[in-house]
Amino acid sequence: MEPDPGVDQSLAELGELAVLARLRAFCAPQVGDDAYIQQLPPEKSLVVTTDVLVDGVHFSDRTMPPHALGWRAVAANLSDLAAMGAAPLGITVAAALPSDTQWRWLEGVYQGMQACLGRYGGDIIGGDLARSGVRSLAITALGAVSPSAAIYRHTAQPEQAIVATGRHGAARAGLALLLGELDCKNIEADLCQDWIAAHQYPTPRFDAIAQLRQLAHTEFPNLDNFAGMDSSDGLANAVMQLCRASGVGAKLVRSRLPLPPGLSQAIGQAQAEDWTLYGGEDFELVMCLPTQIAEALVARLGGSSAVIGQTTTAPRVLLVKDLATRDGETLSCEREFQHFEHTS
Amino acid sequence: MEPDPGVDQSLAELGELAVLARLRAFCAPQVGDDAYIQQLPPEKSLVVTTDVLVDGVHFSDRTMPPHALGWRAVAANLSDLAAMGAAPLGITVAAALPSDTQWRWLEGVYQGMQACLGRYGGDIIGGDLARSGVRSLAITALGAVSPSAAIYRHTAQPEQAIVATGRHGAARAGLALLLGELDCKNIEADLCQDWIAAHQYPTPRFDAIAQLRQLAHTEFPNLDNFAGMDSSDGLANAVMQLCRASGVGAKLVRSRLPLPPGLSQAIGQAQAEDWTLYGGEDFELVMCLPTQIAEALVARLGGSSAVIGQTTTAPRVLLVKDLATRDGETLSCEREFQHFEHTS
Repeated sequence: MEPDPGVDQSLAELGELAVLARLRAFCAPQVGDDAYIQQLPPEKSLVVTTDVLVDGVHFSDRTMPPHALGWRAVAANLSDLAAMGAAPLGITVAAALPSDTQWRWLEGVYQGMQACLGRYGGDIIGGDLARSGVRSLAITALGAVSPSAAIYRHTAQPEQAIVATGRHGAARAGLALLLGELDCKNIEADLCQDWIAAHQYPTPRFDAIAQLRQLAHTEFPNLDNFAGMDSSDGLANAVMQLCRASGVGAKLVRSRLPLPPGLSQAIGQAQAEDWTLYGGEDFELVMCLPTQIAEALVARLGGSSAVIGQTTTAPRVLLVKDLATRDGETLSCEREFQHFEHTS
Repeated sequence: MEPDPGVDQSLAELGELAVLARLRAFCAPQVGDDAYIQQLPPEKSLVVTTDVLVDGVHFSDRTMPPHALGWRAVAANLSDLAAMGAAPLGITVAAALPSDTQWRWLEGVYQGMQACLGRYGGDIIGGDLARSGVRSLAITALGAVSPSAAIYRHTAQPEQAIVATGRHGAARAGLALLLGELDCKNIEADLCQDWIAAHQYPTPRFDAIAQLRQLAHTEFPNLDNFAGMDSSDGLANAVMQLCRASGVGAKLVRSRLPLPPGLSQAIGQAQAEDWTLYGGEDFELVMCLPTQIAEALVARLGGSSAVIGQTTTAPRVLLVKDLATRDGETLSCEREFQHFEHTS
C-alpha cells in the first residue's frame, strides 16, 4: 500500500474539504446531508447525553495519545448511556482545533472513537469541524432504552445497598503516573499499566446493567425503585447526587471503599481513600438497590465491585466505620469534582 | 424583585455547581440524570445535526451580543433540521468558556437560545460546561421527520428548477457593517438593520417547508425526487453540494441571483453578486424542484425567493446570462465557504 501522503500534513495544509472527506470515511455511510436520519428501534425512547473535553483541562499530549483521547471521549458519553440503562445508537463529534493540528493526530482520535464504538455499538453519525486556538472535542451520544427499563437518579429508597461496580481511584492514579506525580519505578508494572489504562481507556459498564437485567429477569422479578448513575465526577459525588435527587442520605463504610488493589501500599491509605472518593473519571456505575439483589450483582460482577454502604433517611452522606455507627465524617460538597475551577 | 447578585460575577466566582443550577433553569424540567430521555413521536425518525461556533472564527463580542449568539447558534442547527424536512425536538449545548466569563454573558446566550427554541419548537435537553481559554459553543439539535417526508441532497434530477427561499448576501453585509467594513451612514437605516439582523438573527425556513408540503398535499400530489439543503455555507456552495450529491450540473442565471434589495447600490454589482454567491450564513433553503411547483412555491413565499436557475445533465455549475446560453462562468469549489482556513 502507498503511504498516505497526508499523514504528516496539518489540517490547514490538507484543506477543510479534504479533511472532511477523510473524516467521512469514519462515519456511517449515510452521513452527508444537512443532518443524519436515525431510525429508533420500535417501542424505545431516545437517550441523549453530551460531554466536552478541552485540551489542558481534560487531556493533554502528555496524558493522552490521540487514540486514547478518542476512546475516552466516546467512553465517557457511553458511560452516561449505560447509567441510564440505554444501548448506544451513535455519536456526533464537534471538533474545534488549531489549523496546524496534524492529520495524524486527528486520525488517531477518530480511530480511537471508532474502536470504542466498535466494542460497545453505535456509529459516528455526524459532526462539525472548526478552527480554534484550543483543541476541544464535544461529543453527543444517542442511545435507546425501553421506557420501563430506564434508570434514574431520583428513585433510590432509604435502606438500600449502595453498589459500586469496580475499583475507584485507578483513573486518578493513572493520571498521577502520566503527570509524573507518581513514579512507575516504585510500583508493580501490572498495576502501573492498569491505572494508566483506567485513565486512558475507561470501559462503560454495559456489562453490569446486563447482569442486573438478567438478575431482575430470573431471581428478582420485583426489582423496582432502584437508582443509578455513573461515577464520572467521582464516587463521593455520585453518592451525593443520588442522595440529593432521591431525598435520602447515605452511610459509606470506610473499610468497604473500592480502593484499587495496591494503591494504599503505593501512596498510603489516606491518599488512596481520597482518590477513591474524589478522584473521578473512573466511569463505573453507582447504584442503590435492594440488599439481596445488590449482593447477587456484586457476586456476579466480581473484581472490586462491592456493596459500599447503604442509603438512610437522614439527609447526610457519612463515611462510617461500620453501618451500626451513627456518626462519621460528613462528605462535603466542597470536595466534589469540579472541572471548571481546576487550574491546568 | 431583588437584583440578581450573580449577574456581575464571573463563572469562577459563582462556582460550577451554582452555574449549572442557573443553567438548569433554562432546561427542560426532566434534565438532571446522566442523560435525557426523549420520546419520539410515533412513526417518526430521529434527525440529528451538530454545529460548533468558536470565538474569533464564527463570532466575536464586536459582531454578536450574547443574546444574538445564542439565537444564531440554535438557528444554524434548526436550519439543518428544516432542510431535512424535520421538526425540532430539542438541543444539547456544550459550552467551553474561560473562567472569567461573566454570568451575564452566559445568561444572555441561554436567553437567546431559549428565544429561538420558543419560536420554532424544542427544549434544551442537556449540556456540558467546561473551562477553556477560547469560548466555543457546540450544539447538537434533534428533530423528527416522517421517513417518507425527509429531504435529501442526492435526489435532484436534471431539468429541475433551483429555488432559493430568500435573499442571499444579507448576512455577509451585516457582518461587514458590524466589522466596520461598511458604514451605516451611507446606507438606508432600514437596510442596515435588516442586514445586521440577517447576520445576528437568521431564521430557519420551516415556513418554506410547510408551504412546500401544503402544495404537495393540494396541487402537486406527485412531488417526488426533489432535493434540498440549507445555504449556511453560501448559495454557490449549496448548489454545488446538491449537484455533486445528485450527479447533476446547474445553470444559475446571473440576473436572477437573489441579491438583497439595496446591496448593489451600496457596494456595487460585482461585490453584491460575490456576497450573494459566497457570503454564507444566510440559512435559507436551496431546493431543486419540478418547475411548476418551484414557481408555485416562490409565488407563495414572496419576498426575494426566486427560481435562480435549473439543473442540467452536464456536471458543471455555471453562472449564465440566460438559460439558453450554453457557456458561462464556472463556479469554483475553491471559492467555497471554508470556515477552517479563514484567519480571524
